[in-house]
Amino acid sequence: MQERASQTRRLILEAAAQTFETHGYQGTRLQDVVAGRAVSKGALYFHFASKEELAAAVINEQHDLLAELAVMLRPRHSRTVPLLIEMSRRIGDLLRDDSMTRASTRLACERDQIGPAAPVLFDAWIDTVERLLEEAKAQGDVLPDADSRMVAELIIAALAGMQRRTRTGETSLDLHTFVMGMWRMILPGLAVPERRAEILDHLDAVDKVS
Amino acid sequence: MQERASQTRRLILEAAAQTFETHGYQGTRLQDVVAGRAVSKGALYFHFASKEELAAAVINEQHDLLAELAVMLRPRHSRTVPLLIEMSRRIGDLLRDDSMTRASTRLACERDQIGPAAPVLFDAWIDTVERLLEEAKAQGDVLPDADSRMVAELIIAALAGMQRRTRTGETSLDLHTFVMGMWRMILPGLAVPERRAEILDHLDAVDKVS
Repeated sequence: MQERASQTRRLILEAAAQTFETHGYQGTRLQDVVAGRAVSKGALYFHFASKEELAAAVINEQHDLLAELAVMLRPRHSRTVPLLIEMSRRIGDLLRDDSMTRASTRLACERDQIGPAAPVLFDAWIDTVERLLEEAKAQGDVLPDADSRMVAELIIAALAGMQRRTRTGETSLDLHTFVMGMWRMILPGLAVPERRAEILDHLDAVDKVS
Repeated sequence: MQERASQTRRLILEAAAQTFETHGYQGTRLQDVVAGRAVSKGALYFHFASKEELAAAVINEQHDLLAELAVMLRPRHSRTVPLLIEMSRRIGDLLRDDSMTRASTRLACERDQIGPAAPVLFDAWIDTVERLLEEAKAQGDVLPDADSRMVAELIIAALAGMQRRTRTGETSLDLHTFVMGMWRMILPGLAVPERRAEILDHLDAVDKVS
């Protein structure tokens, strides 16, 4: 793709994210995406043939979010549990502040409205968390009989559920506090006893960097 | 309300639940609710002035679900943690099998599409779980410094998130397994150490009744 076309595509995706984030899939019309923005309807249709295709592209923007965060933050951590804790703090921040992340998770929750071709965002996220938990087991920090898949499903389901609650203003609990509170609840049953105190100390340290 | 009017209202609510459950709020038209059913459009409009009012009525049907389950199941349990575990097993079953529960949670997740007057279903559920956790603290089964509100938010957010995943066929994990797995993960950090073994035994017993 030429550089200018690529920039236009990016501009459209960001405009689409802002619209989907606010109005959801069914509440968004393609003309709302371009309205009041420096993008023509022609350019929009050049890059995306339909609303379904545009929504799929927004979801795909965040498909590898957790895998990318893991690569980016890994040099800071010699062990994987602290890496996971910092990753989830970052996701909490992105779910609060970044319209692409917010739009992607909202659309991922509205998957059955979009259509069968819509990407399954959360599977990719759960796969990443599960893989890292298995790594933490090999490092001797997570109990060998912990069900990594189940823990990963729980973390992602809770994050998605809580983001919706904060979006609709139902709860005053913020996502940062929620993510840290969730780890405090599941770590006692997840961490190897001898490593628990050190991991909880690390959690307190990450909690303070907000 | 006369008995026949009350029966008709009930019939409409059940038809609405089935339609909302499948198509969501924005995907449902009032004519879909009566189509192919023994309810006239006139009867529908007699009882509910708008789609918004009908959705609010479906949500309100389940507003007190957890409080009612607590009252119903309390005689079977001398302590509150086992009561909570059995309640959540029942909710998992209802989220899987009962169209009114499924429709209510779907609509509660689509609250910002319905409008500001839509009832906040999950607050009532969270309040009930929080109150029971405080009761379990007073009984000496839950650690005094556990954050009951946060645990309640986590349980309900995770349930709502996971129900959506099972509804859209994204995961093969069933709700019963998920609910039991969630308790296994949070109980080690929640239960008073001396009571932990007995509570986990109880969990295994409830898990087998499926």
